[in-house]
Amino acid sequence: MMKKIRYGMVGGGTGSFIGSIHRAAAALDGCYELVCGAFSSDRERGLESAAALGLPAARSYPDYVAMLAAEAVLPADQRMELVVIVTPNHLHVPVSIAALRAGYHVVCDKPAAMTLAEVRALADVVRDSNRLYALTYTYAGYPMVEEARVRIARGDLGTIRRIDVRYRQGWLSDPIEKDGHRQAGWRTDPAYSGLSCCLGDIGVHAFHLAEHVTGMQVQALSADLATHVAGRRLDDDAGILLRFANGARGTLVASQICCGEENDVSIHVYGDRGGLSWSQNDNESLMLKWPNRPQEIVRMGGPGSSPQALARCRLPAGHHNGYIEAFANHYRAVAGALAQQAISVPVGEINWFPGIEAGVRSLAFIETALANSNGNQKWSEIES
Amino acid sequence: MMKKIRYGMVGGGTGSFIGSIHRAAAALDGCYELVCGAFSSDRERGLESAAALGLPAARSYPDYVAMLAAEAVLPADQRMELVVIVTPNHLHVPVSIAALRAGYHVVCDKPAAMTLAEVRALADVVRDSNRLYALTYTYAGYPMVEEARVRIARGDLGTIRRIDVRYRQGWLSDPIEKDGHRQAGWRTDPAYSGLSCCLGDIGVHAFHLAEHVTGMQVQALSADLATHVAGRRLDDDAGILLRFANGARGTLVASQICCGEENDVSIHVYGDRGGLSWSQNDNESLMLKWPNRPQEIVRMGGPGSSPQALARCRLPAGHHNGYIEAFANHYRAVAGALAQQAISVPVGEINWFPGIEAGVRSLAFIETALANSNGNQKWSEIES
Amino acid sequence: MMKKIRYGMVGGGTGSFIGSIHRAAAALDGCYELVCGAFSSDRERGLESAAALGLPAARSYPDYVAMLAAEAVLPADQRMELVVIVTPNHLHVPVSIAALRAGYHVVCDKPAAMTLAEVRALADVVRDSNRLYALTYTYAGYPMVEEARVRIARGDLGTIRRIDVRYRQGWLSDPIEKDGHRQAGWRTDPAYSGLSCCLGDIGVHAFHLAEHVTGMQVQALSADLATHVAGRRLDDDAGILLRFANGARGTLVASQICCGEENDVSIHVYGDRGGLSWSQNDNESLMLKWPNRPQEIVRMGGPGSSPQALARCRLPAGHHNGYIEAFANHYRAVAGALAQQAISVPVGEINWFPGIEAGVRSLAFIETALANSNGNQKWSEIES
Amino acid sequence: MMKKIRYGMVGGGTGSFIGSIHRAAAALDGCYELVCGAFSSDRERGLESAAALGLPAARSYPDYVAMLAAEAVLPADQRMELVVIVTPNHLHVPVSIAALRAGYHVVCDKPAAMTLAEVRALADVVRDSNRLYALTYTYAGYPMVEEARVRIARGDLGTIRRIDVRYRQGWLSDPIEKDGHRQAGWRTDPAYSGLSCCLGDIGVHAFHLAEHVTGMQVQALSADLATHVAGRRLDDDAGILLRFANGARGTLVASQICCGEENDVSIHVYGDRGGLSWSQNDNESLMLKWPNRPQEIVRMGGPGSSPQALARCRLPAGHHNGYIEAFANHYRAVAGALAQQAISVPVGEINWFPGIEAGVRSLAFIETALANSNGNQKWSEIES
Repeated sequence: MMKKIRYGMVGGGTGSFIGSIHRAAAALDGCYELVCGAFSSDRERGLESAAALGLPAARSYPDYVAMLAAEAVLPADQRMELVVIVTPNHLHVPVSIAALRAGYHVVCDKPAAMTLAEVRALADVVRDSNRLYALTYTYAGYPMVEEARVRIARGDLGTIRRIDVRYRQGWLSDPIEKDGHRQAGWRTDPAYSGLSCCLGDIGVHAFHLAEHVTGMQVQALSADLATHVAGRRLDDDAGILLRFANGARGTLVASQICCGEENDVSIHVYGDRGGLSWSQNDNESLMLKWPNRPQEIVRMGGPGSSPQALARCRLPAGHHNGYIEAFANHYRAVAGALAQQAISVPVGEINWFPGIEAGVRSLAFIETALANSNGNQKWSEIES
Repeated sequence: MMKKIRYGMVGGGTGSFIGSIHRAAAALDGCYELVCGAFSSDRERGLESAAALGLPAARSYPDYVAMLAAEAVLPADQRMELVVIVTPNHLHVPVSIAALRAGYHVVCDKPAAMTLAEVRALADVVRDSNRLYALTYTYAGYPMVEEARVRIARGDLGTIRRIDVRYRQGWLSDPIEKDGHRQAGWRTDPAYSGLSCCLGDIGVHAFHLAEHVTGMQVQALSADLATHVAGRRLDDDAGILLRFANGARGTLVASQICCGEENDVSIHVYGDRGGLSWSQNDNESLMLKWPNRPQEIVRMGGPGSSPQALARCRLPAGHHNGYIEAFANHYRAVAGALAQQAISVPVGEINWFPGIEAGVRSLAFIETALANSNGNQKWSEIES
Repeated sequence: MMKKIRYGMVGGGTGSFIGSIHRAAAALDGCYELVCGAFSSDRERGLESAAALGLPAARSYPDYVAMLAAEAVLPADQRMELVVIVTPNHLHVPVSIAALRAGYHVVCDKPAAMTLAEVRALADVVRDSNRLYALTYTYAGYPMVEEARVRIARGDLGTIRRIDVRYRQGWLSDPIEKDGHRQAGWRTDPAYSGLSCCLGDIGVHAFHLAEHVTGMQVQALSADLATHVAGRRLDDDAGILLRFANGARGTLVASQICCGEENDVSIHVYGDRGGLSWSQNDNESLMLKWPNRPQEIVRMGGPGSSPQALARCRLPAGHHNGYIEAFANHYRAVAGALAQQAISVPVGEINWFPGIEAGVRSLAFIETALANSNGNQKWSEIES
Repeated sequence: MMKKIRYGMVGGGTGSFIGSIHRAAAALDGCYELVCGAFSSDRERGLESAAALGLPAARSYPDYVAMLAAEAVLPADQRMELVVIVTPNHLHVPVSIAALRAGYHVVCDKPAAMTLAEVRALADVVRDSNRLYALTYTYAGYPMVEEARVRIARGDLGTIRRIDVRYRQGWLSDPIEKDGHRQAGWRTDPAYSGLSCCLGDIGVHAFHLAEHVTGMQVQALSADLATHVAGRRLDDDAGILLRFANGARGTLVASQICCGEENDVSIHVYGDRGGLSWSQNDNESLMLKWPNRPQEIVRMGGPGSSPQALARCRLPAGHHNGYIEAFANHYRAVAGALAQQAISVPVGEINWFPGIEAGVRSLAFIETALANSNGNQKWSEIES
């Protein structure tokens, strides 16, 4: 009989967006069981959330400190094994460090931290912990993003020359943070969100896609961050030029004021032998373009898919997957690692998952972009 | 604390396609708990399936008769409350009737039955049972199919004149049933599938879409069923002309030999004031076309959506849903009904679900189409 | 120095839709020169049209009889060589026969005739005339329709099993013929249009696409024609089941009351080794679907195109062609034939064009569909 | 009787790409007549080209100087009235100036000049000439690009905040200029192409789209030009950050090494009240996205189109237009201006055409981008 992984959640109370996604993703394959939570800093809301999720009040904790302490004294077969962190950004590192030190595995929503210094400290803890640390870069969970990565890694496109990646949304076109919109509130507040709103919330997704899909690192960037909505305290829009170590060039656009857009996430990569593109709006298709033969569409679960991509499909081709399934692929990979008593799975293996290295890169990206955007220097190197 | 609905499953053992979908759909919103099953007629496979699903061997039953008997003597707070039927078609009615008579609610995969006579007998049992009976017409669970239904019901398109619906697949292009393909094996075997392969498997989906989205009934049809693969015992392809009571005309194409197609499901409806279309391949968009203003795209969860469609969304617009989510909407509606101690929810309410009437219509459709296709008469009326 | 083909036009006066298309198509490659016309039965309008087109009044004739007579006495190097017929349908055959008998080549808009008897008589005249007769089935002029034909002819899809073709428009959703709409007026008037409005106007395009692309003939059909707009004298909507000689099945939908549609023309063909589809709304792409390798998109002018399709491209891939270019491909093919003193070019050659055989098939289709639709017999064979 | 505008062409001999486009565009509406040409610096090729185009040898000139001199002494009713310049870039200004000074109107392909100094000198001549000067920025001729411009000009999107424009091709992915590819040869040769290959060939199209559609000027830019193909003498790839005077931000990507791309031209514009996008690959649709109502698609010639966009359509909605038609819209506008004895038509009028101002802006853009790309300064202002 399969044993489910018992997890506790920090954050994600009633009305949270990302908390419910994590729970649905964990539930999808039947490998996880939510056993406790510190769902909210508001004690009433925390208790309500726990009740709504079918948890006993005894395992609804007022905060993560209490949770870690209380769980530690439970019998080993009841105690949580893994902490899922879906709080605003300011708690990502404190909770991660406390959980890892207390011996729990950690799944944390992105970004990994508020600052580069903070994430480096966390990386040290991860390395010393002998515990698993996973960072949910959602889009890397899509089967056809994996197919794109595999294709480039095996050289189908030849030497990569150009990468254009974007993530455009419209939900922050108006100052909704002033109208009590909870999600907008903390994301535009430096105390909860960090140094950047737009880059921390969606720019890191685009950055991760660019580095992850190509297997290459951005060496230098030139950034233009803007705050279009009057009175907003953090940026809501970014255009960035990218230079990769091999001479490839690219652009990254991340914006939350693209009025009318939902989640316009896409990546286009061009090598000297072919090009590919993927867009979240048709997430089940990977477009391949060639100089000397017809364009191809590799379909999720369809012929031509790599084993790595097929491992991320739950349904036969033509039965559509979505965001939760992409998210769930990270949870499935984490479950697979734990089943084999592994605490990491390198990219390239079947069912790998993003870890702390991706987190460090993202914070290095954010800080470099901010510094560059505020200065007059053309290029700034990313060091991580 | 929320109480989960305890369900038992008949069919759906390891390697089953639709069983895993039902389980994922039931799990998605956290409202159901699988407590027992008669997963396979092969006892070993049944036990393995149960173990893989985390069930104790004691609640893995050899068949549905044993399951109904054994569960009946369990304490009320452990006993299953609902039976999910995901067997081949030949067992749909026997299990449904036995379960309803034993006092359980039923969720059954389509088609409801093998024959019209059989489904009529079941309908009588449903009516007398005071128990809920739900039939999972998947596509009706998609939010934008619901939006289409709402738009037509409120008259946006005016009087409906033309409906073209199709469901094209390619998976039965070759005689894979002869190579031990389990899904193909039973679907092409009259003893397990019924009178028709193509209509029973996918034609009923198209038929249900046509009647459900328009709120109109097909009055007469003229059908051309074919078996393209040599040696196959049932049809694998159908083209059908439709006439509706109000004078509207239409076509229904269902085919399993459309080589290279995954699940090309779509519906186009035209009234005297506008037209709409929906396709599973872009399931989050409802296209609206007008004679005197620009085309519109209503997006899942986006502005312009009706409350009924919004009730079928789990995520903000732009976070993509798929097949499991559509399926899960039926489970969510069933859970909602049971929470209110209702055994049915009429179409038009928030969170309705398809019931036995849809099942009767579909079998009437299949039998009428078969008789017509075999004869020389142009039109045959559907009586149900 | 290249000699341009001198042509006269019958019909196509100011305000005509199709006349201006023919002129633009003829002009596109610089192979034709309009030298005279009988543009309108209204003498004033005819003279105005000629003036607007830069023709001297002397070569603006009151009718085709006068045109044929007057041109006959002009010097051979000024006299028209070819007659383009863009009148309402009732004049197609009389003008064609008179022109052919007077020794002129003919390019005629579809349909070729009002009735099957009439087109058969014309076919005899064509055969005896030693003159070229071309029928402008526009869609066959699109490069990617030619690519589809080539692919099927060379067996890429294997044995064809299913063909679904459609042409849906919305422009006749309202009785605009009663409001003085010229195009709608004659098309819905049996005296000018013939036995059918919808089939004669657009159904024949769909029928021609089906037979032309597959290289197969429809053997029998079962039709349902309807007139949805009250008071209209001819049909405006049709759904038809098709049976081909080799056992392939299909549907043809042609409708002018699909409110909000512009020209939704598409064809889907499935064989036992693959499928393809083409849609006018993305006319530069031919979609190929395979059971065992990724989908392909052959692009107009791009890699993988056949020589026959490339011969229909004017621009490098990525510079978009449209309706006029498709039309112009017929004119180019006619010019090519005349340059080689050929009066026909069989389908399959580079730069063939549709001729009288396609015209006969279309009228046989219309009459068979009408008879079938009016009767109770399931299937009617098309004899031509 | 309509008088056609007599034009002579400089460049555009047999095998030229853009020369044949200009001729087809001029021919499309029947307003122009090609009367002479200096088609090639190769005398034989020039004579052959003239013959193929149906011109007498006497009006096939060895070069533009000879053409201007010879035409000047022809009778006024035979002499050309307008010079069309389709040479490589190095001759654009010399021919333009000579033609204007000789009293001819000029239609010139983009870019207007090799350098900013050169185009400024030309601008002076244009201003003093009392002759019409038109610059064929093709994409501005598309009806739905005009619709985009109109929508933004009238404020539908509110204050513009973000503009992303791109033009990606793959045809220069390999060093085809070394294999005798004529088009690639001169475009990558500074002596014929100017300071930049990628920006001069396609970057200026993207830049013009950005400024033209928004009606706003780029104030400053930060550019990263690259040469990816070894041995190439000019750039083949560019990523550029844009800042507009009102605070709007943007990116411009132009690349000729995007392997497998044909002409991926698109623009996305976002204001504080809505967003729009247009792509050449679906040139007949303008996508409009709104925060509070469904997305809209305005279709070429369809409901909701502005008079300005409708004036650029030749066919009813659903009959597809393409590249030649877009090009022809500039020729039609020039013909309209000349018919009214106007030498310019401001943007915003029905049937305006791009003129010398657009040419000056483009060269200012190229020189600023080059200087910035070569330096370490973040931002460079465009002065023109």
